[in-house]
Amino acid sequence: MFRTHTNGELTLKNLNEKVTLSGWVQTIRDKGFMVWIDLRDRYGITQLVFDADRTSAEILENAKKLGREFVIQAEGTVIERASKNPKIPTGEIEILVEKLTILNSAELPPFTIEDETDGGEELRMKYRYLDIRRNPVKDKLIFRHKMAQKVRNYLSDKGFIEVETPVLIKSTPEGARDFVVPSRMNQGQFYALPQSPQTFKQLLMVGGMDRYFQIVKCFRDEDLRADRQPEFTQIDCEMAFVEQEDVLEIFEGMTAHLLKDITGKEFGKFPRMTFDEAMKTYGNDKPDIRFGMKFVEVNELVQGKDFKIFDEAELVVGINVEGCADYTRKQIDELIDWVKRPQIGATGMVWIKFQNDGVVTSSVNKFYSEEDLKKISEKFGAKEGDLMLLMSGNANKVRTQLSALRMELGNRLGLRKGDEFAPLWVIDFPLLEWDEETGRYHAMHHPFTSPKPEDVHLLETEPGKARANAYDMVLNGNEIGGGSVRIFNKELQSKMFDLLGFSKEEAEAQFGFLMNAFKFGAPPHAGLAFGFDRLVAILDGNEVIRDYIAFPKNNSGRDVMIDAPSPIHDDQLNELALKVNL
Amino acid sequence: MFRTHTNGELTLKNLNEKVTLSGWVQTIRDKGFMVWIDLRDRYGITQLVFDADRTSAEILENAKKLGREFVIQAEGTVIERASKNPKIPTGEIEILVEKLTILNSAELPPFTIEDETDGGEELRMKYRYLDIRRNPVKDKLIFRHKMAQKVRNYLSDKGFIEVETPVLIKSTPEGARDFVVPSRMNQGQFYALPQSPQTFKQLLMVGGMDRYFQIVKCFRDEDLRADRQPEFTQIDCEMAFVEQEDVLEIFEGMTAHLLKDITGKEFGKFPRMTFDEAMKTYGNDKPDIRFGMKFVEVNELVQGKDFKIFDEAELVVGINVEGCADYTRKQIDELIDWVKRPQIGATGMVWIKFQNDGVVTSSVNKFYSEEDLKKISEKFGAKEGDLMLLMSGNANKVRTQLSALRMELGNRLGLRKGDEFAPLWVIDFPLLEWDEETGRYHAMHHPFTSPKPEDVHLLETEPGKARANAYDMVLNGNEIGGGSVRIFNKELQSKMFDLLGFSKEEAEAQFGFLMNAFKFGAPPHAGLAFGFDRLVAILDGNEVIRDYIAFPKNNSGRDVMIDAPSPIHDDQLNELALKVNL
Repeated sequence: MFRTHTNGELTLKNLNEKVTLSGWVQTIRDKGFMVWIDLRDRYGITQLVFDADRTSAEILENAKKLGREFVIQAEGTVIERASKNPKIPTGEIEILVEKLTILNSAELPPFTIEDETDGGEELRMKYRYLDIRRNPVKDKLIFRHKMAQKVRNYLSDKGFIEVETPVLIKSTPEGARDFVVPSRMNQGQFYALPQSPQTFKQLLMVGGMDRYFQIVKCFRDEDLRADRQPEFTQIDCEMAFVEQEDVLEIFEGMTAHLLKDITGKEFGKFPRMTFDEAMKTYGNDKPDIRFGMKFVEVNELVQGKDFKIFDEAELVVGINVEGCADYTRKQIDELIDWVKRPQIGATGMVWIKFQNDGVVTSSVNKFYSEEDLKKISEKFGAKEGDLMLLMSGNANKVRTQLSALRMELGNRLGLRKGDEFAPLWVIDFPLLEWDEETGRYHAMHHPFTSPKPEDVHLLETEPGKARANAYDMVLNGNEIGGGSVRIFNKELQSKMFDLLGFSKEEAEAQFGFLMNAFKFGAPPHAGLAFGFDRLVAILDGNEVIRDYIAFPKNNSGRDVMIDAPSPIHDDQLNELALKVNL
Repeated sequence: MFRTHTNGELTLKNLNEKVTLSGWVQTIRDKGFMVWIDLRDRYGITQLVFDADRTSAEILENAKKLGREFVIQAEGTVIERASKNPKIPTGEIEILVEKLTILNSAELPPFTIEDETDGGEELRMKYRYLDIRRNPVKDKLIFRHKMAQKVRNYLSDKGFIEVETPVLIKSTPEGARDFVVPSRMNQGQFYALPQSPQTFKQLLMVGGMDRYFQIVKCFRDEDLRADRQPEFTQIDCEMAFVEQEDVLEIFEGMTAHLLKDITGKEFGKFPRMTFDEAMKTYGNDKPDIRFGMKFVEVNELVQGKDFKIFDEAELVVGINVEGCADYTRKQIDELIDWVKRPQIGATGMVWIKFQNDGVVTSSVNKFYSEEDLKKISEKFGAKEGDLMLLMSGNANKVRTQLSALRMELGNRLGLRKGDEFAPLWVIDFPLLEWDEETGRYHAMHHPFTSPKPEDVHLLETEPGKARANAYDMVLNGNEIGGGSVRIFNKELQSKMFDLLGFSKEEAEAQFGFLMNAFKFGAPPHAGLAFGFDRLVAILDGNEVIRDYIAFPKNNSGRDVMIDAPSPIHDDQLNELALKVNL
């Protein structure tokens, strides 16, 4: 037996017990006549003490020869520590070691296995198996596991069945970002890896499965923006015989269940915001509502005062930054430079200070009287000590720019707290998006997304105004899940394909298979999918998903640990009837 | 709201309630003045009644127009049935329908959606989404879900962490059966899909994860024997700081937990059988011990009696088929023909009958006296009415042949009952297998499998006799799981590579990555993997795994429903820098 206990469980209750522990040598303190070793495993750290007086000189000598990360087994007696460590559960005891076995030696690791390591990102990725030994990484993987278990049990209790859908599927014409898999048994033919199990979950609804879920790997071969992974995990869900309300209820219940587990707090009903409201109030369809700085539109107050920039703007909109009236000119200029960066692209920014002395002043005093400025301040609900920042221009653009500024200030002012959670639903998304480039409509969600019943008539007249029965769950400024009620009516589906500019043949080629299945009695159904990697990161108070993936890939889609992808042998290519043609 | 209740829950308790149900039309009985419809969903069937007297003529007319598999919604009142159906939970009530809505019409399905369908395998696979509506398929998928949940909860409770390992990994030189995935971002390079997460789970042990599991898809591009799938699911597990005994204990606990859930019975400790014993007693390393017919070796009783075939045989071995002494000559000849088929390859078979009248007779009376035959019968433990069947030849061959016969007779005699479970561990497998073709040893399990400590010395002298710390869990004649204690000692690992005939360079190329990780302090570890598809099938009293997979592939690796694999567009190939070269 390698151990009687783990390194996280012995306390004063075990005093004088003979125990055997195993683990990695975390630290060695050699005081000559005595040696202390912190022995580590997944469960914690237990201090070992070696002492020639109380055991043997030989064992003390052996202990001195150990190195960091050696794997050892120690037998001994639980004794009370002289100097206790209240920070760890085992901090009141230590093990007086009577027998020491080296299970495995270790080369010096390329970085320290400490919570604060000296290893850079690149090095830690290459030796990910060592990085996992560190608490910050290990704890994240354990947290992920716990969340997955909670999701599975919650949904199972609600009658959802986890069904494994295939990984080797068919490449579709729209599958430009599909990974493909050549088949040896069917040379010249390819499977594709699923970007999502969308088709299969809808088929399961046609198949009467009623409530389906799956925590499932999905794949997308695309240029990786920071913090995207070519393989990622979804909580994929679908329900039959439901309306939007049923879906929202189940999945806010699930999310509240997870949040309660983490915070101990009840979250009840989540707020709901329409897409239009979100865009108007936060410039963003995934608003972080942990903090205020809601958008205030002031066209009617600022226009007509000869300030040309505002006069010509489609929208003049600003935010009130509470308590920041004391920003220096330098601080404000830095903010103005920040919004002018090409990533944001603003042309400028106007500030108004409601000073602590009651005076309201601004960068546009030339055009506005103090009375004008007071009226504007009033509209913002500003009080003494507040700083208002105003931007102007094309409505869509300026909202996006101001949203970026709002988030930046939220970060800088510490308003985006990792242990605070503000979930909401964003609903009533537009059904269609007009694409200037192709001169046609695109489905904002996907072509099976149902319009809101009361907007169906708009499809004939003003399709761009039709809203969809689509919904996103937003948590702390991140879209963590989204979905829609699906169209299950043939006529409406045809109408949609027309609007999207698909010919009958194109619609048939891209969606014919699913449409065919729908002929045999498709029930009304709706669903959604959560990005599990991101959900877990945010629930853990983080935003970087990579830390929550055991073996992630880098921004070039490479696994630097195993060095994949890599060239393959010619005979493998031959068997697949393939030639690399660089 | 589409429904107030499902079709499986209304009983007399709900009498006179107004309810709304939705589902598929299973059957319509039209008696002119009245119509009955069985409405089906995942949860059951509820009878709807339409009656012009009690509701309206219009609704009756509409009901008559419905077709099988139409999706409808019915509002009405729960009433007591005149003729009750005790076979279903809702059999005492029916719904007097007051409002009927057709949610979707349906074309006539290509086969009947009944427990006993008229659809052939091929057709049902093509329309798998309709096949899933049938109880026999739907119930199997739900059973699979329940087993997965039970496994996850059991292992989580035991401190195992489910860690998702990557699907896009690296192809290795031994990966002849790897599916590969061309990368677009790294043209000319390929990922591989994992045949198992073996490397990653060992890395997780190096990473201190201590107890890992994962229910995970694995992939193998090989010629598919009947009932193999190119993508299959494993319960993959690994533990650190354990010996073989710890692994056996945890996983027989897990399996007993599942079996108890199914049978209500306690299974306690599983029997253990060494590989040698299994081969000698059942001719098979995965014996079905639900029934007897253990092998009896009779060389010393039958040799030296001038029966040349037996005299020249390395082994004469037989089974006692209880109660079959009354088999006719024709029946026995058919059995002899059966073992002579090329798939079995026996040259003949001797029978001995212990007749009900006490006379012992045989097909080789010429060579053996009745006294001889009685002695043989005694060895077999045969009694009046039993039939002994004896085969002879090369020991390994004859055991395999007799094992096939034993299983065939087990099936024919109804001794292999689906609702009876006989799990066992087969242990002490040979470490190495001699390959005549290549003239070298192969690892029977894999090259990291540890020899039994007491057999390590044999590696120097008689490596073929060394036994491994490897184990299989066998259930009802199927290997459902297997694994081993891993080598974590560098010297022993080098010795193994030598024995397997790997040069230093080859070992480095194939296993260098893992060996390198081992340098940084690998703990002792061991693990195993269950074939989840098969496990579920057997636990459900079945042996065909395809029924337990929602969307399986056929024997050519094709998904006939979605028609995958299939050719892809030239521009997709170009982006991957690939050319198909048929």
